Amino acid sequence: MKLPSTTTLLLEVCDFSLRITLNRPASRNAMSLEMVTELREVFSLLRQQTAIRAVVIRGADGHFCAGGDIKDMAAARSVGVNAYRELNRAFGSMLEEAQQLPQVVIAVLEGAVLGGGFGLACVSDIAIASHAAKFGLPETTLGILPAQIAPFVAKRIGLTQARRLALTAARFGGEEAVSLGLVHFSEPDNAALEQRLATTLANIQRCAPAANAATKALLLRTEQEPLGELLDAAAEQFAETVVSAEGAEGTLAFVQKRAPSWAQ
Amino acid sequence: MKLPSTTTLLLEVCDFSLRITLNRPASRNAMSLEMVTELREVFSLLRQQTAIRAVVIRGADGHFCAGGDIKDMAAARSVGVNAYRELNRAFGSMLEEAQQLPQVVIAVLEGAVLGGGFGLACVSDIAIASHAAKFGLPETTLGILPAQIAPFVAKRIGLTQARRLALTAARFGGEEAVSLGLVHFSEPDNAALEQRLATTLANIQRCAPAANAATKALLLRTEQEPLGELLDAAAEQFAETVVSAEGAEGTLAFVQKRAPSWAQ
Amino acid sequence: MKLPSTTTLLLEVCDFSLRITLNRPASRNAMSLEMVTELREVFSLLRQQTAIRAVVIRGADGHFCAGGDIKDMAAARSVGVNAYRELNRAFGSMLEEAQQLPQVVIAVLEGAVLGGGFGLACVSDIAIASHAAKFGLPETTLGILPAQIAPFVAKRIGLTQARRLALTAARFGGEEAVSLGLVHFSEPDNAALEQRLATTLANIQRCAPAANAATKALLLRTEQEPLGELLDAAAEQFAETVVSAEGAEGTLAFVQKRAPSWAQ
Repeated sequence: MKLPSTTTLLLEVCDFSLRITLNRPASRNAMSLEMVTELREVFSLLRQQTAIRAVVIRGADGHFCAGGDIKDMAAARSVGVNAYRELNRAFGSMLEEAQQLPQVVIAVLEGAVLGGGFGLACVSDIAIASHAAKFGLPETTLGILPAQIAPFVAKRIGLTQARRLALTAARFGGEEAVSLGLVHFSEPDNAALEQRLATTLANIQRCAPAANAATKALLLRTEQEPLGELLDAAAEQFAETVVSAEGAEGTLAFVQKRAPSWAQ
Repeated sequence: MKLPSTTTLLLEVCDFSLRITLNRPASRNAMSLEMVTELREVFSLLRQQTAIRAVVIRGADGHFCAGGDIKDMAAARSVGVNAYRELNRAFGSMLEEAQQLPQVVIAVLEGAVLGGGFGLACVSDIAIASHAAKFGLPETTLGILPAQIAPFVAKRIGLTQARRLALTAARFGGEEAVSLGLVHFSEPDNAALEQRLATTLANIQRCAPAANAATKALLLRTEQEPLGELLDAAAEQFAETVVSAEGAEGTLAFVQKRAPSWAQ
Repeated sequence: MKLPSTTTLLLEVCDFSLRITLNRPASRNAMSLEMVTELREVFSLLRQQTAIRAVVIRGADGHFCAGGDIKDMAAARSVGVNAYRELNRAFGSMLEEAQQLPQVVIAVLEGAVLGGGFGLACVSDIAIASHAAKFGLPETTLGILPAQIAPFVAKRIGLTQARRLALTAARFGGEEAVSLGLVHFSEPDNAALEQRLATTLANIQRCAPAANAATKALLLRTEQEPLGELLDAAAEQFAETVVSAEGAEGTLAFVQKRAPSWAQ
């Protein structure tokens, strides 16, 4: 994969994964318009990259992302309403695009996971937190709204918990994030966090790339389509996949008690 | 706020919150048509009361609400089918209206939280139970249906758990209610319950009133509207809020490291 | 109930319940087209059987169901795409029909609960697992898709957990299945499992048969219908039920402090 040049992101390809590091450590990786734009550019490139099977998103210097930049907002009257609307909507588009990536998206959540950072965590396929991470939706304490992230938070953890978190600006750590169903794993220290990431990537390697991408797309469609139509389409896809190169290799490898080609 | 005169409810304004106590202790605060009507009247008044930022609903004498009045139902043949349909639908309308209140709705759940009382708990933004509370959906053991509350229960705890609870009439306490995602907190004794309520109200005070009301409305809309349209509307709202009086005060207070006006 | 003759299923009526045992132990009860067809025939008969109030589905010889038959799939090129599409869709139809059964469906989950077996577990009203059960969605490790089961898994445990399980082919036991909300109970040994099943059936017996069937149908409708219309229909149903034979008996029995007729 040919990587674009970016100023707010560090990008690195490791085996079959792209590692994206949010890199504005002076502001705890707060989301600027430039960062949003660069993320969308990378996501756009990723849609064609079938050799990349996983995307790992994390933050530089011990924080994931502290949300929007409050100092900018305090000066918003001079910037104008239109600019804020566009920035906010661009952030929402970035979340939609992250959600729809064909790759398995892993979020590694350390330090501040606030506001927009919380929203980005909500579109990951697999979320791994440290116990010490600080999650929260502080928007209304600032007189503003968790506008673009509200739908993603409600979808991720349900309306019941989203209401409490948004209306009380509650702060919580990685273990509570597991019990809320926001993240899948919470780890006590850095070594355990890295080990969990490595294990997760190893598990993804066992899964056929095209089958995983098709399964992710199918799961996302369950949110929007009537059951009968979806099952019809899924049966069509299933039959095509059974006789595809991956299906033939995977089922043959199973019968021959060996690892399939993509897992090696 | 000018409080209406009520016979089945005790009403009291404390600072920025309205305290509503269901007060038919002889029947464990069972929902009569009169109580439903009085609750709807209070909710209607609350829609205009921006100075009231939270509503605390609890029951008199150690019980939240035991549901409908079974003795009334045993005499239902003489009352007539129409009267029962209207009472039942009025109860559902009350739940819809409670759900849509602009204030943060806190339910304090002690003793019996059964049938209709269970349904009312399901529309709260924040639910605080005692360990000793008794939750359950006993309707089908009486040959009747959890008719108006079924949609609210399924939305609150998911279809998987709603099916088990409704089809086995299971009884459970506050701690299981937390693990089902029905309530947010369960407390071992009365002092801890009151402390949790006080802390919750203090957290709500930190949140800007109009921003909280707008955030609650936005979260409820995520259930019904397509994502793209909702994000467009949310970006518009966000931009307006950033330059509003609350947004200006909140972000300025953040930069100045002081509490905003609404938190004092 | 007159039981059909089946080769892949064992059928037995015990009191008010039908016990269905998936019985292809040589392949850990893998779903063949014949088994799917026989299950659909039984479900079709059950729709008229109001004397049967519960259906218990389990597997022979210590396994629930290992999913599809992989050896068959490895030979799929010769069978043809059409046959696979039809088998897959028939399996999905069976899940839809199981979901809509008027009876309370209890799944008893031991040993392998994989792929299609996992999907079948997801349409039960009450799921009881053993700690030692092995749950998982191994499809993409075989180069194929969890096609028909994806919507049922996402509905059962939410998109957040469904994504992780499907995209990493994670394996897990009964206790994790409880914490994922996939099953309601996990038991440490066979005696506890049978005790839980007996208790569950005893609880179902306390619930009026027609009221339970109507409540299940109502809960399933909450997934698809607008709230207002559903509440109108539910109020109508409630009023009819209060004056029905079950409603009259149930409420009278309550007032008379005795068990209603269906609970004896």
